[in-house]
Amino acid sequence: MAGRVPIRLGKLAEALGAVLEGDPERTVSGVAPLQTAGPDDVAFVGDVRHLEAARVSRAGAFLTPPDATGLPGAVLRCVAPRLTLIDLLGLFHPSDALVPGIDPSAVVSREALVDPTAAVGALAVVGAGAVIGPRVRLHPLVYVGPGAQIGEECVLYPHVTVRDGVRLGRRVIVHPGAVLGADGFGYQFDGAVHRKVPQVGGVIVEDDVEIGANTTIDRSTLGDTIVHRGTKIDNLVMIAHNVEIGEDAILAAQVGIAGSCHIGRGVVLTGQVGVADHVVIGDGAIALAQTGIAFDVPAGEKVMGYPARPTNLGWRIVVAEKQLPDLVRRVRQLERRIEELESRLGDTGTAPRG
Amino acid sequence: MAGRVPIRLGKLAEALGAVLEGDPERTVSGVAPLQTAGPDDVAFVGDVRHLEAARVSRAGAFLTPPDATGLPGAVLRCVAPRLTLIDLLGLFHPSDALVPGIDPSAVVSREALVDPTAAVGALAVVGAGAVIGPRVRLHPLVYVGPGAQIGEECVLYPHVTVRDGVRLGRRVIVHPGAVLGADGFGYQFDGAVHRKVPQVGGVIVEDDVEIGANTTIDRSTLGDTIVHRGTKIDNLVMIAHNVEIGEDAILAAQVGIAGSCHIGRGVVLTGQVGVADHVVIGDGAIALAQTGIAFDVPAGEKVMGYPARPTNLGWRIVVAEKQLPDLVRRVRQLERRIEELESRLGDTGTAPRG
Amino acid sequence: MAGRVPIRLGKLAEALGAVLEGDPERTVSGVAPLQTAGPDDVAFVGDVRHLEAARVSRAGAFLTPPDATGLPGAVLRCVAPRLTLIDLLGLFHPSDALVPGIDPSAVVSREALVDPTAAVGALAVVGAGAVIGPRVRLHPLVYVGPGAQIGEECVLYPHVTVRDGVRLGRRVIVHPGAVLGADGFGYQFDGAVHRKVPQVGGVIVEDDVEIGANTTIDRSTLGDTIVHRGTKIDNLVMIAHNVEIGEDAILAAQVGIAGSCHIGRGVVLTGQVGVADHVVIGDGAIALAQTGIAFDVPAGEKVMGYPARPTNLGWRIVVAEKQLPDLVRRVRQLERRIEELESRLGDTGTAPRG
Repeated sequence: MAGRVPIRLGKLAEALGAVLEGDPERTVSGVAPLQTAGPDDVAFVGDVRHLEAARVSRAGAFLTPPDATGLPGAVLRCVAPRLTLIDLLGLFHPSDALVPGIDPSAVVSREALVDPTAAVGALAVVGAGAVIGPRVRLHPLVYVGPGAQIGEECVLYPHVTVRDGVRLGRRVIVHPGAVLGADGFGYQFDGAVHRKVPQVGGVIVEDDVEIGANTTIDRSTLGDTIVHRGTKIDNLVMIAHNVEIGEDAILAAQVGIAGSCHIGRGVVLTGQVGVADHVVIGDGAIALAQTGIAFDVPAGEKVMGYPARPTNLGWRIVVAEKQLPDLVRRVRQLERRIEELESRLGDTGTAPRG
Repeated sequence: MAGRVPIRLGKLAEALGAVLEGDPERTVSGVAPLQTAGPDDVAFVGDVRHLEAARVSRAGAFLTPPDATGLPGAVLRCVAPRLTLIDLLGLFHPSDALVPGIDPSAVVSREALVDPTAAVGALAVVGAGAVIGPRVRLHPLVYVGPGAQIGEECVLYPHVTVRDGVRLGRRVIVHPGAVLGADGFGYQFDGAVHRKVPQVGGVIVEDDVEIGANTTIDRSTLGDTIVHRGTKIDNLVMIAHNVEIGEDAILAAQVGIAGSCHIGRGVVLTGQVGVADHVVIGDGAIALAQTGIAFDVPAGEKVMGYPARPTNLGWRIVVAEKQLPDLVRRVRQLERRIEELESRLGDTGTAPRG
Repeated sequence: MAGRVPIRLGKLAEALGAVLEGDPERTVSGVAPLQTAGPDDVAFVGDVRHLEAARVSRAGAFLTPPDATGLPGAVLRCVAPRLTLIDLLGLFHPSDALVPGIDPSAVVSREALVDPTAAVGALAVVGAGAVIGPRVRLHPLVYVGPGAQIGEECVLYPHVTVRDGVRLGRRVIVHPGAVLGADGFGYQFDGAVHRKVPQVGGVIVEDDVEIGANTTIDRSTLGDTIVHRGTKIDNLVMIAHNVEIGEDAILAAQVGIAGSCHIGRGVVLTGQVGVADHVVIGDGAIALAQTGIAFDVPAGEKVMGYPARPTNLGWRIVVAEKQLPDLVRRVRQLERRIEELESRLGDTGTAPRG
C-alpha cells in the first residue's frame, strides 16, 4: 500500500544482487503480477511455467532465473528469484514507520511495563504486570492480559487476544483474531457431570513464529504449550493444551492438533490435517491435506488419508479404490465360474471339492 | 427481536401476493415454528414433509404452497412459499432503524471519510484514508484499517477486522470476528529459515457478498484476492491469498480454499470441503461435505470423497467398501479353490499351469 | 498464575480426602508436571503409564491411585486421582477475586441492567436492554448486544461477541473470540440471486456450558438454537442455526454441525467431525475424529469414517484397504488362471462356459 517511488534499474540490480540486461537508467516504481504489470512495474518470473504469460506481459522489467529468455523488457537475472522477490517486495513496500507511544484511548495498566519505543494502538488493553518490549506494535483493539510478555518487535494485529501469563519471543507476528492462552479443553466426568480441570499452565511462543488469523493456541493444564522458533502457522488452526511444536514447522490453515502432541522440527502439516492427542510426529514428516493422524509418524515420513498411511501405499489405495466397485462384480463372477468348473469336474468324478 | 404489531390477514395476503383462505379481518402479529406457534402467529409449511406437524399446530395462519390441504387455520397460499417466507419475515422483523453518526467513543481518524448517513458504533476504529459509504453500519468494536473502502449499506458486525486497503462493495454483510486482509501465508525457505514473502496485495469483495462469523479472507501477495458479487460464505471459512471466487457461489462452514484457486460462478462447496492450491473449479460444480479437492473440477461436476471423484463413482465406492473386508476373504477362498482345481487337473496330466 | 503459598501435607491430605504416606509437617506450595516438579511441588500420577516418569521425578509429593508403589517422595493416595487433581489445582490456583463494578472505559447502555456484583471490563460494550447477572465477569473488549441475557457467574473472555437477544444460563464460560448469535446461513435462490432468509430466532445456552475460543453458534431462523446444560464445546467449532444439543455432550475442536441437527445427551464428537443438516444423533453416540455424519446415528453407536459407519465395520475396512492394491492384482491373476482352466476344459470338450 506504499506510494510509488521510482528507482533506476541499475540501482535496483545492485540492491538485489541481480544481473541486469537492459538500460540501467530506466526507472521502475512497483511490483505487479505479469498479467496486470505496466511499463513502470517489475514482474516476477519464477520458473518456466510463467514464461508464456511473461512473453505477452507489458511489464518494464522482469525478475527471472539465470536462464530465462525471450522476455519483452529489461531482465534482472538472479540465482534464487523466489528469495530475491522477497527483497524486491521489501524495497517497494517498506513497513510503515513505527510511531512509538500509547494511544490515549488505550487502557494500559499502571502496573504494566511498556517500552518507550513500543506503539500501543487505539483501544488496546494491557493488563497489570504485562511487559511490552522494544519496538512492539500492538494494533488497535488488541488485548494483552495480566503478566503476559511480548518480546521485541512483535506485531499483534487488531482483535488479538493474549491471555494472562502468555509469553511471546521476539519478532512474533500474530494476525487478527488469534487467541493465545485460552483454557485447554479438559474435563473429568464424575458420574454426574463433566468437571472442569483447571488449566493453570501457560503458552510459550518463541522467536520468529507467525500465527494466522483466528488461530487458537490453548494454555496447558500444567507446564506450557510451546511453539518453537521459526514455526509458521496459518489461519484457523487449533493447537490444544500441552502440545509442543518444533522449530521451523509449517502448519497450514484449519489444521487441528489435539492435546499433548509432540510435532517435530520442520514438520509440514497441510490444510485441514487433524492429529489425535498424545501423537508424536518425527522431524521433517509431511502430511497431505485432510490427513487424519491417529498414531505416531516416524521422522521424514510422508503420509496421507484416514487413518494416515505412507503416501506410496496411500496413492496405490486411491488408484485401487476406483476399481473397487468393478472388483466386487468380478469376484462375484469368478465365484460363479469356479463353482461351475468345480461342479463339472465333480460331475465327471475327477475333482470333488474339499 | 422486533415488537409484535398486529396485521390483518387480508392486508398480509395482499402484501405477500398470496391467496387467502380464511377471515381477512383476523389479525396475526408474528411468525413462529409450527411446533410453538400460537393463534397470533403465522407458521410456515414448506412442503409435504411439514404437513403432519402443521395439522396439529396451533398457528392462526399457515403460509403454504398452492396445493396444501387439511390445515387447522387460515391459509395463505403462494407459488413459491420459501421466497414468500423471506418477505413475511421481513414484514414482522424489519431491520432496526439506522441512526447515523459516529459514537463518541469510536476512534475515527481525521483523515477518514465517513459518510454522514453512516453509523459508527461504540469503540469502533477507523484508520486514516478509510472511506465509509452511505448508510453503512459499523457495529461496536469494528476495526477498519487505513485506506480501506466500505461501500454503501454494508453491515460490519462487532469485532470484524478489515485491514488496510481492503475494498468492500455495496450491501456486503460481515459477521462478527471475520478477518479480511490478513497476510497471505507465504514463505520461502532459504536453507536456514522460512523467510516471509511480503503480502502487499489486497482483497476485493464485491456487492451483495455475505461473510460468516470468524471467517478469514487473506490479502494477496500481489494483485487481489477477489470474491465476486452475490457469493455467500458461512462461518470459519478460510480463503487464502490470490484466490478468486465467482459470482453467486455458496461456501458452507469450515471450507478451506488454498492459495491461487479459481472457484467458478455458482459453485457450491458444502461443509469442511478443502481445496488445494492453484485448483480451478468450473462454474456450477458441487462438492459434498468434507470433499478433498486436489485437482481441477470441470464445470457442472458433482464430486465427493478424498481425493474428489464424481459422485456416481464415489457412491459406488462407498457401497463397495462395505463389502471390502468380506471381499478379501472371498478372494483368498477363490485362490484356494483354483489352486485345488489346478492341482487336480495337473494330477491328471491334462492342465499344466503356464 | 497465583503466587505460591506453602501448605502442610497433613492439611492437604485432609482437604483432598487423601491418605497421606509421609511427613504431615512437610510443606508444598504448587503443582507441577512430573518432569519439572521440584521438592516443593506435588506431581500427578494418574495411572501406571506415569510410573516410570514418577520414579525419577524430583517432586516432593505425589498424588496417586491407591495402589501406586515405589515413589521417591510423600504419597497422597486417593480413589479417583483425576477428580482429586481438580481439587488440588483449585487449591493452589484459586480464581482471581472478582472486583465488582463497571470499568470507566466500558460503554454500557443506560437501558442495560448490570447487577452491582458483576464486573464489566475495560472497553466492553453492553447494549440496551441487556441483563448482566450477579457475579458475571465481562472481560475487556467483550460485546453484549441489545436484549441479551447473561446469567449469574458467567465468564466472558476478551473479544467475545454475544449478539442481540442471546440468552446464557448460569456459570457459562465463553472463551475469547467466540461468537454467539450471528445470523444462520440461509438463502433461497430466486432464479437470479441468492436471497437472504432473515434469521430472526435466537440462541439459548443453558447452565454450565463451556464454549471454546473462536467457536460460533448461529441464531436460528425461527425459534432458538439450543445448547443444553453441561455441554462442553472446544475451539473453532461451528454450530449452525436451529441445532439442538443435549446435556453433557462433548464437542471437540473444529467440529461442524449443520442446520437443524439434534445431537443427543452425552454425545461425544471428537476433532473435526462434520454433521450434515437435519441429522439426528442418539444419546451417548460417539464419533471418532474427522467422521463425516450424513445420516442419523442410533443412540450408543460408535462411528467413524466417511460416510460414518459403526467402528467395528470401519476398522475392518481400514485393515482391508491396505490389502486393496494387492487384491486388484490377485483378482486379475485369478481371472487369468480360471480362463486357462476353462479353456483347457473346453478343449477337452467337457466344460463349455455358460
